[in-house]
Amino acid sequence: MRSHYCGDLRKEHIGEDITLCGWVHRRRDHGGVIFLDVRDREGLAQVVFDPDREESFALADSCRNEFVVEIKGTVRNRPEGTVNPEMPTGEIEVLGKELVILNKAETPPFQLDEHQNVGEEVRLRHRYIDLRRPEMQEKMRFRSKVTNAIRNYLDDNGFLDIETPILNRATPEGARDYLVPSRVHEGQFFALPQSPQLFKQLLMVSGFDRYYQIAKCFRDEDLRADRQPEFTQIDIETSFMDEEGIMALTENMIRKLFLEMKDVDLGDFPRMPYSEAMQRYGSDKPDLRYPMELVDVADLMAEIEFKVFAGPANDPKSRVTALKVPGGAQLTRKNIDDYTKFVSIYGAKGLAWIKVNEIENGVNGLQSPIIKFLGDDVTMAIMERLGAENGDIVFFGADKAKIVSEALGALRIKVGEDLNMAQCEWAPLWVVDFPMFEETDAGLTALHHPFTAPSCTADELKANPLEALSRAYDMVLNGCELGGGSVRIHDQEMQAKVLEILGISDEEAEDKFGFLLNALQFGAPPHGGLAFGLDRLIMLMTGTESIREVIAFPKTQSASCMMTEAPGEVSAAQLRELNIKLRKTP
Amino acid sequence: MRSHYCGDLRKEHIGEDITLCGWVHRRRDHGGVIFLDVRDREGLAQVVFDPDREESFALADSCRNEFVVEIKGTVRNRPEGTVNPEMPTGEIEVLGKELVILNKAETPPFQLDEHQNVGEEVRLRHRYIDLRRPEMQEKMRFRSKVTNAIRNYLDDNGFLDIETPILNRATPEGARDYLVPSRVHEGQFFALPQSPQLFKQLLMVSGFDRYYQIAKCFRDEDLRADRQPEFTQIDIETSFMDEEGIMALTENMIRKLFLEMKDVDLGDFPRMPYSEAMQRYGSDKPDLRYPMELVDVADLMAEIEFKVFAGPANDPKSRVTALKVPGGAQLTRKNIDDYTKFVSIYGAKGLAWIKVNEIENGVNGLQSPIIKFLGDDVTMAIMERLGAENGDIVFFGADKAKIVSEALGALRIKVGEDLNMAQCEWAPLWVVDFPMFEETDAGLTALHHPFTAPSCTADELKANPLEALSRAYDMVLNGCELGGGSVRIHDQEMQAKVLEILGISDEEAEDKFGFLLNALQFGAPPHGGLAFGLDRLIMLMTGTESIREVIAFPKTQSASCMMTEAPGEVSAAQLRELNIKLRKTP
Repeated sequence: MRSHYCGDLRKEHIGEDITLCGWVHRRRDHGGVIFLDVRDREGLAQVVFDPDREESFALADSCRNEFVVEIKGTVRNRPEGTVNPEMPTGEIEVLGKELVILNKAETPPFQLDEHQNVGEEVRLRHRYIDLRRPEMQEKMRFRSKVTNAIRNYLDDNGFLDIETPILNRATPEGARDYLVPSRVHEGQFFALPQSPQLFKQLLMVSGFDRYYQIAKCFRDEDLRADRQPEFTQIDIETSFMDEEGIMALTENMIRKLFLEMKDVDLGDFPRMPYSEAMQRYGSDKPDLRYPMELVDVADLMAEIEFKVFAGPANDPKSRVTALKVPGGAQLTRKNIDDYTKFVSIYGAKGLAWIKVNEIENGVNGLQSPIIKFLGDDVTMAIMERLGAENGDIVFFGADKAKIVSEALGALRIKVGEDLNMAQCEWAPLWVVDFPMFEETDAGLTALHHPFTAPSCTADELKANPLEALSRAYDMVLNGCELGGGSVRIHDQEMQAKVLEILGISDEEAEDKFGFLLNALQFGAPPHGGLAFGLDRLIMLMTGTESIREVIAFPKTQSASCMMTEAPGEVSAAQLRELNIKLRKTP
Repeated sequence: MRSHYCGDLRKEHIGEDITLCGWVHRRRDHGGVIFLDVRDREGLAQVVFDPDREESFALADSCRNEFVVEIKGTVRNRPEGTVNPEMPTGEIEVLGKELVILNKAETPPFQLDEHQNVGEEVRLRHRYIDLRRPEMQEKMRFRSKVTNAIRNYLDDNGFLDIETPILNRATPEGARDYLVPSRVHEGQFFALPQSPQLFKQLLMVSGFDRYYQIAKCFRDEDLRADRQPEFTQIDIETSFMDEEGIMALTENMIRKLFLEMKDVDLGDFPRMPYSEAMQRYGSDKPDLRYPMELVDVADLMAEIEFKVFAGPANDPKSRVTALKVPGGAQLTRKNIDDYTKFVSIYGAKGLAWIKVNEIENGVNGLQSPIIKFLGDDVTMAIMERLGAENGDIVFFGADKAKIVSEALGALRIKVGEDLNMAQCEWAPLWVVDFPMFEETDAGLTALHHPFTAPSCTADELKANPLEALSRAYDMVLNGCELGGGSVRIHDQEMQAKVLEILGISDEEAEDKFGFLLNALQFGAPPHGGLAFGLDRLIMLMTGTESIREVIAFPKTQSASCMMTEAPGEVSAAQLRELNIKLRKTP
């Protein structure tokens, strides 16, 4: 019906008779003339209706915001002095000749440019209006372009797009899956996939060599700000390729994507072993935009009497570390109190600090409530190790290693943001050499998943599981895990050994993924892969804070959809057919 | 790890040192030399191991079928007389120099080339082996290429790929959905989407203008041979485009696809009104490869005494029709009995026939048990109307119109296949001008869905709903519905009218799709779209009989997965968390 998109009109169209279709974004009555700003996917165009065309003038006059219109007219120069350099179409306007109102609109529940003052609930309830906002249009379009660019890259590199099932096997020992009762098989359930992990490994056993899928995944978890019950994964798996090959291929993909979509060259991604990342940044996904590092000082504190430090300093499972913040001496008491509250989220019981005012005066040039507990010598030894300079503040963490790393690691980024200390806009890296296992109250668990290959032999693994490293790798950007993957175990005996170490019984293993264990017997190739979180990638690339802003129809934090009011009630007959009933009637 | 795919090796590689990775497809010991046919995604290459390289010879000798190997060697000409013109790599072979066994393999449950003799259950149970077969590799690759080509076409035409949710609203009046109990909202359920219909319409209301998605859809139905519980749809919706525009765009997409993928030019698709399709072919998806048509003869039989024909001939809801099969006089009594059984599937109570031996002798030249009931004049009048010639057979159907159309429509194709009567390989068409409603025992129902726009005004619709035609269109290829769609209702009052005619109460409408009805108030543009069944498209393009052959991990007809044994049992604790329990313990 249209000849041009509104947002595409430019000087070169002047003199052309055109047809526009779109929404009345704004109607103004000015000097006896009606101005309609008409909006479509590509942007806005100004259309002028003169009173000498009576019919169209009257129709234009009757238009209200969000009416749907079809307009025939002629493109012309805007009169001198009315050019709008802010608008891509700001040099021209359309002289409206015919107008058809294709549909009327009630006054929308919120104006498109007033969404900031509108609660997210209202926006989500009327998502079809919220999505009209240029920012949302732009985000959805950006997302579409990204998936397209990724598909093209993978296609160009010989990857096959293969679909894996959504209705999967549920198991009694399963993690918290979304379950789907089977009507045909009484008392049995499907589970929605948390990832296509096992299927993509089987596709490698089948010899497809290079697989990808932009796959929906599901997790029935209590939602944090950046989680959704269903999310989208760029899922990749290859055969006969080691970690170097996989990392090069996927790094190149992300680099190319940033270049194409944002004109940003991410350069070569540095690599950092997990242990170093934890040591220097207190995180397995360090945000390298901020230069500050954690510096361990346990050895300097081992002998002091002050137990808050000496205790952890003498406990191998604890950590005593310092974070020097250049220029941080300017922080107020209030700032420091806020940071103390901040680290308490991570379990830290306090936040000791030393301000460096005049380091040339030794401890007399320092300001801190803790120097008297540390003693002058220890204090100065710490200052020396940190290379403290005037104007710095030093924060301390002393507790179980996990708490200290998480608390100081998070503080590092928080302070970095607050003091605008980012040294670059984009800081990608690979974190590698993860441990195979970590110790939890429930015993050993796999840091990645039980199909991750170790970088040692089965015997070495067995002898010293907590020392063993895996062939896993995470791609991190600005402190976010963009994607993670590993070389997988393709050897049946190694797989058995890992399951044994994890304390997974043969029966449980058979029940949960017996088909994979079987498949490993019939000629499984060496293989590995990686999965990127698409939603998070789009968030990062568009600078969006909430995952809900990059998904067309997201769920709230209570896993419901404000617009459709999902989930909903069903009838007793529906449940009967599925052989289930409610435990309590709501 | 590899330098070349096995299947890519050609004469131009002769003399090159290469590395192959793949599976031992066959191992032969011939004239003191070991031949390994090594297989990867791209095909087979023959590798020769001489005894003078002791180590690699011994390893090659120890290889068994489906072992995973890495081989270094040199490409050379095959000795004269051993060139295999059947194999793409049949002119060359590889002289094996080094061999690494990357993984061993148990004897597979079936040999890859013996699958024909293996039950489908065994193949599905070991799908990862079944998928190694070159046919399956080729089908998955073909499917990947098709989705890619479609995405590129739609991307080139300004369509945005937008994801819609899988966890949707379940409603008490819902069709039979797959349900997902909500853990957070006690007693409530999500439903998996049967299609993204409502969401794509909302995206049009949001102004995205052109949307597509290759979307997973779900239907908890008793499965027929060509159905799966989860299937994939190429889902398309556009705004400000009428049926002509949408049909042109999608017809062009399919034409381009056939040209690119199969080098077939489908030409312009003819169009046929629904009523004509039913009349001439007894089907709303006629297979135009076969020229035979149904010819109604009720008027000629209205006066005869034989009630089997005269009854239906005088009943407006019945149909009496004839199908002339050129050359069909050769059919045996046994053939005709089989066809009689065949039409009984569709409810036909018998299958009357007349063989035309010597039409120049009038009824004496005909052979049939029914001439005596019809009488000579009626018989000859029918022969004349049909233009019967010597060698023909004429079949008759007389019953309720639905039964006759279905039975004779199906017989037409069955006989056409049996007698190889196809006049072309590909016969596409559009079926248009569908009725808005059909009458069922439950009252009026929408032939497409309740959001389909009528081609008349609301008043005309109300006055005569069963006469009203819709703006729906189906793309049919070789008797299969490839896709279907319509211009949607964008006017709130029209939508209310249609729901009223369908007897859907305000309450039920509000409950099931109140958000769409709301959205129509806030400036919905004229819009329409179409959805293709991707699985069926691939089946047709690859000449596959079963939908399970074009899906990597399909479900059986009892909606279970032989490989993973989905669905499975879950624990009482899992159910408790979801606030449900089993009605009967299995």
